[in-house]
Amino acid sequence: MTDPIRLIGAPTSAVGARASAVHVARTPTGDVVGASLTPLQDLSGTITPADLHFERHHAGVPVIDPSKHTLLIHGLVDRPTTFTVDDIKRFPQVTRVHFIECSGNGEPGWRNGMFGKPNPGLTPQLVAGLTGNSEWTGVPLRVLFDEVGARRNASWFLAEGGDACLLARSIPIEKARDDALIVWAQNGEPLRPEQGFPLRLLLPGWEGSTNVKWLRRLEIGVRPWMTRWETATYTDPLANGTARQFAFEMDAKSIITSPAYPLTIAAGWWPLTGLAWSGRGKITRVEVSTDSGATWRDATLDAPPLPKAHTRFSHLWQWDGHETILMSRATDETGYVQPTRSQLIRARGAGTLYHWNPIYGWRITANGRVFFHGDT
Amino acid sequence: MTDPIRLIGAPTSAVGARASAVHVARTPTGDVVGASLTPLQDLSGTITPADLHFERHHAGVPVIDPSKHTLLIHGLVDRPTTFTVDDIKRFPQVTRVHFIECSGNGEPGWRNGMFGKPNPGLTPQLVAGLTGNSEWTGVPLRVLFDEVGARRNASWFLAEGGDACLLARSIPIEKARDDALIVWAQNGEPLRPEQGFPLRLLLPGWEGSTNVKWLRRLEIGVRPWMTRWETATYTDPLANGTARQFAFEMDAKSIITSPAYPLTIAAGWWPLTGLAWSGRGKITRVEVSTDSGATWRDATLDAPPLPKAHTRFSHLWQWDGHETILMSRATDETGYVQPTRSQLIRARGAGTLYHWNPIYGWRITANGRVFFHGDT
Repeated sequence: MTDPIRLIGAPTSAVGARASAVHVARTPTGDVVGASLTPLQDLSGTITPADLHFERHHAGVPVIDPSKHTLLIHGLVDRPTTFTVDDIKRFPQVTRVHFIECSGNGEPGWRNGMFGKPNPGLTPQLVAGLTGNSEWTGVPLRVLFDEVGARRNASWFLAEGGDACLLARSIPIEKARDDALIVWAQNGEPLRPEQGFPLRLLLPGWEGSTNVKWLRRLEIGVRPWMTRWETATYTDPLANGTARQFAFEMDAKSIITSPAYPLTIAAGWWPLTGLAWSGRGKITRVEVSTDSGATWRDATLDAPPLPKAHTRFSHLWQWDGHETILMSRATDETGYVQPTRSQLIRARGAGTLYHWNPIYGWRITANGRVFFHGDT
Repeated sequence: MTDPIRLIGAPTSAVGARASAVHVARTPTGDVVGASLTPLQDLSGTITPADLHFERHHAGVPVIDPSKHTLLIHGLVDRPTTFTVDDIKRFPQVTRVHFIECSGNGEPGWRNGMFGKPNPGLTPQLVAGLTGNSEWTGVPLRVLFDEVGARRNASWFLAEGGDACLLARSIPIEKARDDALIVWAQNGEPLRPEQGFPLRLLLPGWEGSTNVKWLRRLEIGVRPWMTRWETATYTDPLANGTARQFAFEMDAKSIITSPAYPLTIAAGWWPLTGLAWSGRGKITRVEVSTDSGATWRDATLDAPPLPKAHTRFSHLWQWDGHETILMSRATDETGYVQPTRSQLIRARGAGTLYHWNPIYGWRITANGRVFFHGDT
């Protein structure tokens, strides 16, 4: 390769491309009912690029003509209304940074099939890649509900997506009165198709499937609709044989994104770093243990932590060359502390299917290899 | 087009693509000594997607092998050192949101050639698209200067890029002690080639050309180097025949991004919105006039405004169908107020070549057409 200072470079371009030396990608399975994961180990800071934000679809990504797409709001309202996308964009808009996390995030670290131990060869992407953090722009849902005259006795609403499975979730109306948005932009640009283009429901801090993509209908009522996505799926079996339903809020969680599998590290200083987030508000503290949980120290949080958003933490760690386990533990502004795996099993049983947020670690071998460690 | 709810959609993908109905692009000229502009009118919120962030190059975009790229820090230091990119990434890292703006931003709104009036057919992209706002991750420059033992008598440093023109700028060392960073990531991902991959100097709030891309050398000394980029270019001719040199800080500025040319609007409510920023700190106020400057009202700022970062403002405006001019005026935390064009000419003369930040407006005709209005 010729020294770049000896060559005139490339001209300006309409849309940039990544450097050929940079390899970042989700994990597509090729299925229309599938997921692909954010490459957390390859990212810095807190923003997830839109084209690398995880996906979870139940009937693939629909192709929608935005000039034909509409949003119907009806049910317990004074004025049932069908809005075009342009209509929605004429309301007062706000911009907020929030994560979206699938309630199934973390399964490979929790269990390997029905009985297997988690694989030590898991990357941060595989352990926790069903989350992404973006700047979203849209209209507060309460503004639209005021516009259609939502009745005072309304207590729930149904949100239905425009994909082939018409994914629909029931949401308590308090969330609309709080911080719910109808968004059309992510990280400055129009939503990508796999993130709900042209309109998406954003419920900050609530499980991913409630952030309904390709939003086409909101029905206001007085009880949940008991759709298949809140009965057959997205409920959490408990140890006593019952199940948690409508477990909307994502619990506080953290993961060290570097060092992590498959790195091999040398003794000396290492800028340990990772992400923490909570569906209940701001992250107030992330503690790090570099001695297998014996002692914990406060990591540095990049100020200002935003509510219901990924927060980057860092800790300058000096590895002495001995085997150890690195762990992180998040605390949010409600005082909630991220549990160990055994604490989570005591609370919900080993068979729980969603909302895994235990402390996960990385085992450093004496020769510097880094492996996933889920047994906390 | 078949109703999307009747069709199974596309499977998950490794890297997403924009919707085919979405057209966003910079303005490439095809020149290696050229610029391309951020499409401000097509963006929402505050983040500029990395692949749409403006470009300004003097010898094209070099192709750099990151495994061979190095950063030399030498001059008035105890330990001249050559750092690899991996070396740089092992220092403690921070993440900050900042704009980068070319000091030549706004020329088409200021003048049309030597004597022409600005063209009323200018979009926000053409009026002010030489700015972008991103989340940047890197190491504070003061940490590296401590590492090499910068001498106490040092007062300036030279930053040299690795492109074919070896663009180099002299910087007062106070900026390194304040908030300068060496960054390797933009909006979560590794820098794009046209934004300086693999390493860029980030001087928050200072004119774009000082944010040296493809950074390969920092020399520490006691006076500026008087490179061609601070003598032949990037100086501001003044009315009295002298010139401003080292005018680093970008002055407070704002632009309404919607409504703007080439829109045609109807009477009624319109969500007027735009961007404001200052190289001296936070934006504290944006005023909007919807009656050709007769009266001004405070626009709403999306909280929290960050220092030296784009701030989104909004104002719900009801157009009565009569001809008018829309304008915005930014104030920053130092109390500086964005001037009119005539105030700026009184201060610096009509021939000034950089740092144009006058109030610009949009003229609404009686039939709802929107045109650029630069004569404030």
